[in-house]
Amino acid sequence: MTSSERRRLYSLLTDKDRAAEVMAYLDDDAQRDLTVEMTQEQVADLLDRMEADDATDVVENLPDALRESIMSTLDGDADELRDLLAWPSDTAGGLMSPAVFSTPETATCGQAIIRLQEMAEDLDSVFYLYVVDSRDRLSGVVSLRKLLIHPPSTPLVSVMTSDVISVQPDRDQEEVARVVARYDLLAVPVVGTAGELLGIITVDDVLDVVQEEAVEDMLLMAGVGEDADSPNNSVFRLAQLRFGWLIATAVGGMLADRIYHWYGAYIPIEVVGGLVPVIMGMGGNVGIQSGTLAIRGIATGRVHVKGGAGFVWREARVGLLLGLGYGMLLGLYGLFLGAGSMPLVGLTVGISVCLAIILGSILGSSLPILLHRWGADPAIATGPFVTTGVDILGIVAYFSVARVLLGSG
Amino acid sequence: MTSSERRRLYSLLTDKDRAAEVMAYLDDDAQRDLTVEMTQEQVADLLDRMEADDATDVVENLPDALRESIMSTLDGDADELRDLLAWPSDTAGGLMSPAVFSTPETATCGQAIIRLQEMAEDLDSVFYLYVVDSRDRLSGVVSLRKLLIHPPSTPLVSVMTSDVISVQPDRDQEEVARVVARYDLLAVPVVGTAGELLGIITVDDVLDVVQEEAVEDMLLMAGVGEDADSPNNSVFRLAQLRFGWLIATAVGGMLADRIYHWYGAYIPIEVVGGLVPVIMGMGGNVGIQSGTLAIRGIATGRVHVKGGAGFVWREARVGLLLGLGYGMLLGLYGLFLGAGSMPLVGLTVGISVCLAIILGSILGSSLPILLHRWGADPAIATGPFVTTGVDILGIVAYFSVARVLLGSG
Repeated sequence: MTSSERRRLYSLLTDKDRAAEVMAYLDDDAQRDLTVEMTQEQVADLLDRMEADDATDVVENLPDALRESIMSTLDGDADELRDLLAWPSDTAGGLMSPAVFSTPETATCGQAIIRLQEMAEDLDSVFYLYVVDSRDRLSGVVSLRKLLIHPPSTPLVSVMTSDVISVQPDRDQEEVARVVARYDLLAVPVVGTAGELLGIITVDDVLDVVQEEAVEDMLLMAGVGEDADSPNNSVFRLAQLRFGWLIATAVGGMLADRIYHWYGAYIPIEVVGGLVPVIMGMGGNVGIQSGTLAIRGIATGRVHVKGGAGFVWREARVGLLLGLGYGMLLGLYGLFLGAGSMPLVGLTVGISVCLAIILGSILGSSLPILLHRWGADPAIATGPFVTTGVDILGIVAYFSVARVLLGSG
Repeated sequence: MTSSERRRLYSLLTDKDRAAEVMAYLDDDAQRDLTVEMTQEQVADLLDRMEADDATDVVENLPDALRESIMSTLDGDADELRDLLAWPSDTAGGLMSPAVFSTPETATCGQAIIRLQEMAEDLDSVFYLYVVDSRDRLSGVVSLRKLLIHPPSTPLVSVMTSDVISVQPDRDQEEVARVVARYDLLAVPVVGTAGELLGIITVDDVLDVVQEEAVEDMLLMAGVGEDADSPNNSVFRLAQLRFGWLIATAVGGMLADRIYHWYGAYIPIEVVGGLVPVIMGMGGNVGIQSGTLAIRGIATGRVHVKGGAGFVWREARVGLLLGLGYGMLLGLYGLFLGAGSMPLVGLTVGISVCLAIILGSILGSSLPILLHRWGADPAIATGPFVTTGVDILGIVAYFSVARVLLGSG
């Protein structure tokens, strides 16, 4: 759908509640695109009809000037919105909805049902009933199902689970997703430092996070910016966004050419030069394999930053085996190629392939862990910036071995 | 955790219901690992304590002989299990739980609540109340919240939503995940061809699917088998699993070497040979960029197999712009490198870089679409099998241009 088709279609939504609902489902680009043509009043009206966590997303996608003037026109909800906007959008605080249904510890099941019925209109998705103490601190949780199957006079405290799984508002959204997925939760409460209930994050938002993070990782691993996935960009803009990611490859390629010419004075370059691509390819692909396993391992929590050495050691041993296997195979090819005049080409190629593969497996497995430790996204480790570095090391290793075994100077 | 640590830990779970619950949460490898040491009676007892959809997973992970003998010892539940096992595990039928709570159309809200209370013990996660007609066909859905806020005498048909989003049992699990994510559902009913209610798929299972599919895509894109992610494999087995994925790179590398030597007779190979890596790298990286965008686009439904031409055309134009940019940059480098003796090296390099990038963007964007149309997983398009092919084409293009512009024969 083009931008103008979308706008036309959206303008056909005359029911304003429906329009607000549709807006809440749209992604950031579409929200930006649709709101940019609206008046301040129209945006304010839309926001009024949304739940606070959805409204926050829309507000975040508004131009800066419009955002501030909108915030001043919203009366009661503005504080709530402002509180939500204070948390970065990729944290638990940014994901949560403050519209959480809580009941005091002193209530019975029957009283809770009555409160639920009174408030039901405002609460779009109630999954659990959170029980709070007199100081608004989360003390337990009751499922709706439990509420239904106990007599109305049962005190909530006697049916509630007091061991509640919760998250703090500054938690990264990936961690929140891990908690919700691990415990198969429908919603997870967000709790402040004093134990006070701040809001809830529902499973549908978590599902969006998981999909978003997977896409983000994939795009970073492929060396494409996140924005490159947006269909609204012009071809020129897309090329511009992707241009920078390829710089490393171009600069690395020029460097590789310099190395080729420099070593050309010392080694029979017309004999060994043809195998540069396979040395780079084997090292690079093993590096991407190890890197991908490390990135996934970090994302799922299986590879820990502290226990990372064990993972790198495992990958190094896998690399050694792969290196010996392919070193032998390509060494035999080199022997056949160099047979007669230069039988040592076989040995050179064999050793170099093995070195490049071991290098690839060690760098590929350790770089994501180091990047993660340094606070960067480990997914960039398989992108062009890092793989180019591995390529250059592989070429230097190959030519150095060639110089020792076949060198003329 | 090693396999023996896990077994020791699991044996500490003396509460058998808890043991069954833990087993249901474990992944395939861990289930295989733990059940292999159990007696038939122990496994049968575990399965008895699980929900049918979780039990199916455990049964699927048993050795063949044990599986059949187990199925014969399970009395009442065996038919249900057998029905579930009939669906491939990556379809809606394989994901669904047949323990769905349904109520006849003739019931009132009050009657539904009473039935819910009677059955509550067996139903671990009730999200919606499904309403069926006299022939067991799905006719509507009521949320628990709606059930709570209406007087008990209200007929279900007057509060139910009759426009129910459902899936067929043969649907691929990725499609199910898309439906659940798009409509923010907690559960989606699975409905047979005659409209009969077969089971439900809950959002926690969908979350697992989304994570699983993202990992699968990522591993395929990196050219690692799915099993390579399992920490239980020995280093030798891991190397064995990854060996095959690198064959294409090795064979392609030998072919590239042959091409290098064959063209060596016609072109000044010691001058142009050093730039082979950058030609391959630029084409390959742009191919991976386009390929990743195509794979994501197909997964999210943004790129359609039928409308794929528009996407390829967009990528081709992006490729043209990138090719012109980097062709110019690397062409200038070639001009400087070949200055004096061979100024045409600049032109050769410029044209070849541009060609390789355009080739990469067209093949990278179209191959996933073609693979998907042929029923294969589009994610393999960025793996070593395909990228090696693109590399070879890039080298041939480069040397052919060199032969025309710089050739001596």
